[in-house]
Amino acid sequence: MNRLLLNCDMGESFGAWTMGLDEQVMPHVDCANIACGFHASDPGTMRRTVALAVEHGVRIGAHPAYPDLVGFGRRSMNCSNQEVEDMLLYQIGALDGICRAEGARVEYVKPHGALYNDMMRRPDLLRAVMQAVHRYDSSLQLMLLARRDNSQAQTIADEIGIPLMFEAFADRAYDGEGFLLGRDQPGAVHHLATEILDQALTLSRGEPLTAADGSKLVLKADTLCVHGDNPESIMVVRQIATALEERR
Amino acid sequence: MNRLLLNCDMGESFGAWTMGLDEQVMPHVDCANIACGFHASDPGTMRRTVALAVEHGVRIGAHPAYPDLVGFGRRSMNCSNQEVEDMLLYQIGALDGICRAEGARVEYVKPHGALYNDMMRRPDLLRAVMQAVHRYDSSLQLMLLARRDNSQAQTIADEIGIPLMFEAFADRAYDGEGFLLGRDQPGAVHHLATEILDQALTLSRGEPLTAADGSKLVLKADTLCVHGDNPESIMVVRQIATALEERR
Amino acid sequence: MNRLLLNCDMGESFGAWTMGLDEQVMPHVDCANIACGFHASDPGTMRRTVALAVEHGVRIGAHPAYPDLVGFGRRSMNCSNQEVEDMLLYQIGALDGICRAEGARVEYVKPHGALYNDMMRRPDLLRAVMQAVHRYDSSLQLMLLARRDNSQAQTIADEIGIPLMFEAFADRAYDGEGFLLGRDQPGAVHHLATEILDQALTLSRGEPLTAADGSKLVLKADTLCVHGDNPESIMVVRQIATALEERR
Amino acid sequence: MNRLLLNCDMGESFGAWTMGLDEQVMPHVDCANIACGFHASDPGTMRRTVALAVEHGVRIGAHPAYPDLVGFGRRSMNCSNQEVEDMLLYQIGALDGICRAEGARVEYVKPHGALYNDMMRRPDLLRAVMQAVHRYDSSLQLMLLARRDNSQAQTIADEIGIPLMFEAFADRAYDGEGFLLGRDQPGAVHHLATEILDQALTLSRGEPLTAADGSKLVLKADTLCVHGDNPESIMVVRQIATALEERR
Repeated sequence: MNRLLLNCDMGESFGAWTMGLDEQVMPHVDCANIACGFHASDPGTMRRTVALAVEHGVRIGAHPAYPDLVGFGRRSMNCSNQEVEDMLLYQIGALDGICRAEGARVEYVKPHGALYNDMMRRPDLLRAVMQAVHRYDSSLQLMLLARRDNSQAQTIADEIGIPLMFEAFADRAYDGEGFLLGRDQPGAVHHLATEILDQALTLSRGEPLTAADGSKLVLKADTLCVHGDNPESIMVVRQIATALEERR
Repeated sequence: MNRLLLNCDMGESFGAWTMGLDEQVMPHVDCANIACGFHASDPGTMRRTVALAVEHGVRIGAHPAYPDLVGFGRRSMNCSNQEVEDMLLYQIGALDGICRAEGARVEYVKPHGALYNDMMRRPDLLRAVMQAVHRYDSSLQLMLLARRDNSQAQTIADEIGIPLMFEAFADRAYDGEGFLLGRDQPGAVHHLATEILDQALTLSRGEPLTAADGSKLVLKADTLCVHGDNPESIMVVRQIATALEERR
Repeated sequence: MNRLLLNCDMGESFGAWTMGLDEQVMPHVDCANIACGFHASDPGTMRRTVALAVEHGVRIGAHPAYPDLVGFGRRSMNCSNQEVEDMLLYQIGALDGICRAEGARVEYVKPHGALYNDMMRRPDLLRAVMQAVHRYDSSLQLMLLARRDNSQAQTIADEIGIPLMFEAFADRAYDGEGFLLGRDQPGAVHHLATEILDQALTLSRGEPLTAADGSKLVLKADTLCVHGDNPESIMVVRQIATALEERR
Repeated sequence: MNRLLLNCDMGESFGAWTMGLDEQVMPHVDCANIACGFHASDPGTMRRTVALAVEHGVRIGAHPAYPDLVGFGRRSMNCSNQEVEDMLLYQIGALDGICRAEGARVEYVKPHGALYNDMMRRPDLLRAVMQAVHRYDSSLQLMLLARRDNSQAQTIADEIGIPLMFEAFADRAYDGEGFLLGRDQPGAVHHLATEILDQALTLSRGEPLTAADGSKLVLKADTLCVHGDNPESIMVVRQIATALEERR
């Protein structure tokens, strides 16, 4: 069994504004989801983030979003599937252009924020996302949420011919279907390092979590989403990375 | 001697706003300079413009600009050379991402508006532009203004290892150095179709124009810039295309 | 009984892109809904449009929208009510700033596109819109859709203390509740000038239309929305203006 | 003689990105220069910053800029004077719209970054800025750099009829004309709290500074620009505020 990979959103600074401790978290992760300028980042930030990923041998993924800087891509927008396909091609290509100058390439795509959530709820939109990724480069992977039942997503992916990476969260509670519990629900976010580390190890062993409805929930995940927002989250990432390494 | 290629700025619509008669001019040109979203265009417009170019077998070039939609990229911005390099990589990549979905690729780069003018006046900026183009893909060409003396540009290009395409204008008057006469100067823009056609043929034969200072000016050009703004300009493009074809 | 006022969306050009025949339609309308830079327009376009309205003695309304230039404000965005209130204050103020330089003032507010539609469907959002308008200036009117039953909107308006202007459409079919029939429905848009003129006069007399479900629909409207998109629509506006004038 | 007022740039957060310790610095200053959305800020940030200023009885100034979020308004743009006039009206009005909802009003205008620098170097642009401020509201003040010789600025202001506030800097070195020494020059920025406090008191007493060329430089200033970027700068602001208060 392969070790769970760690993925982290990065390159979310914008112009004069800084967000995330990218330099501190990069050494500990496997996959960097790099913002593409629609919800965060700009060409200079992307260049520096890609160089940092290359320096640490970290795989680079595009982290495209709805065009909404003020809302950080967190507000759902009623875009057509064609519009979403085109804006993904644009953003993946833009990041890949930056990568070329640093001797790297985009290897996977993980949509951001509201686009990610919308894609997990609407199969027609998920298909548009997959089409975009596949049309950009048929070897690119799509990273998406591991749920109790991934068959619908897998069926569309097989039809289009696109490889998938399923991700799970160590710091979030799940509902019975395997969706993340809304942040407005009690207990939706785990704040204790020990609790997060426990859930990471449970996921890593392929053992079931307990969903919010009390049911046992097994998530078959390839990667775990971690966060580099602040010193505390960096410490948790280091602990998870160490614990996963010891399990091998 | 090769026929002068015709290049035309395209894909300069933006969202709900239309600019340029792209469908009418595309059948008559060889090279389409497609806007990349910084001064004009959006992912959907880029997709449709690329598809139109592919349909007519027209070569696709990226037409990157300063980030200035309101000013249509015509206002010079005091960006650092590093900022320009990064924004070019972003824009070339973004268009290339769209191209991939249509089975095409970006083949050359022609900067737009104020960025084009600034690059022709400042060797340090020209070098940054060439670095970006070369780092994206060492086979990409840069399209730039043919002047009386192109040795400085050619020297930088040779050093970096980037192929150049020189362009001339049939509808503009030149100063003694081979810069375009400013639009605020009398006689700067030729409006008569016969005058434009004459200058196109003169350039095509490698014969000298008369510059504004009365000197003879030979421009060694690979391509002629034409315009698809309105029905009159389309008619001129058709006449130029026919005349150049007959010369072969 | 007062004559139906004619209102028209204007100032929807953006930078180098032109939209709408504002100069041709302005002489024939009473109220100009001027875009505020979020879905269309820019400070220069706003200045010229305000000057044109002042020249023709036309009342100026702010036409604020979701922040979505590429989508022309037609894509619903999941903004919070607080975000909508703040973006309305910003846009109304921006247009009013332009008005001051031309000796005019914003007199009413008509939200644009998706924001208009969302506000007509969601009382909580309508309340946020009304709060913004009232907090900007308690004498400003809100222009909104006249429906079969306007009591809910009127109740909120009375509570907040904001005057309303109800608008109707001469070129659109209605459903039984008095909502505009979706453009994807057959017969949703009237294209014949005679048909549009008929509906304008029916509305003007306070007589019932026939809704899509066959029911009689009386709309108590203060103003009629007309369009200056193209020469045909200008002709229709002139005919409506003449007919309404004759009725007085 | 009046006490030197303290002014500080504020509201420079943008969407999800935070900049400046506005809550900590607001209690110690007299004038808040609030960003208007072109180089920083957004309607929600503006609303919260205005509310904070109102809470502390701080005067509100508009801090308009070139339209350049990625460059934080620090990159000069070749805008026409008309474009600058219009973009100022737009931004002043937008902030004033937010102010109205909080029971406040914009009382002065201080251009930001590259626009400020350009205006101090180009009398034609300074005139356009003054026209905009005056046309918005003839009682608004313009805040600008106190130099050795302010007669040119004063002459234009008198002609237009606009009141001026001159500002000086306690943490910057000056050249012989009274321009700020470029940040790339040695000694351009004072970093020691004692040095900054000394210069603040010297300015406050109307005594001369020593310019970079060794000449004595008297700056007649109404206000001192202070910074709320980090805990150290907040401490300096508190010390300056206390020292100026004691002098009265």
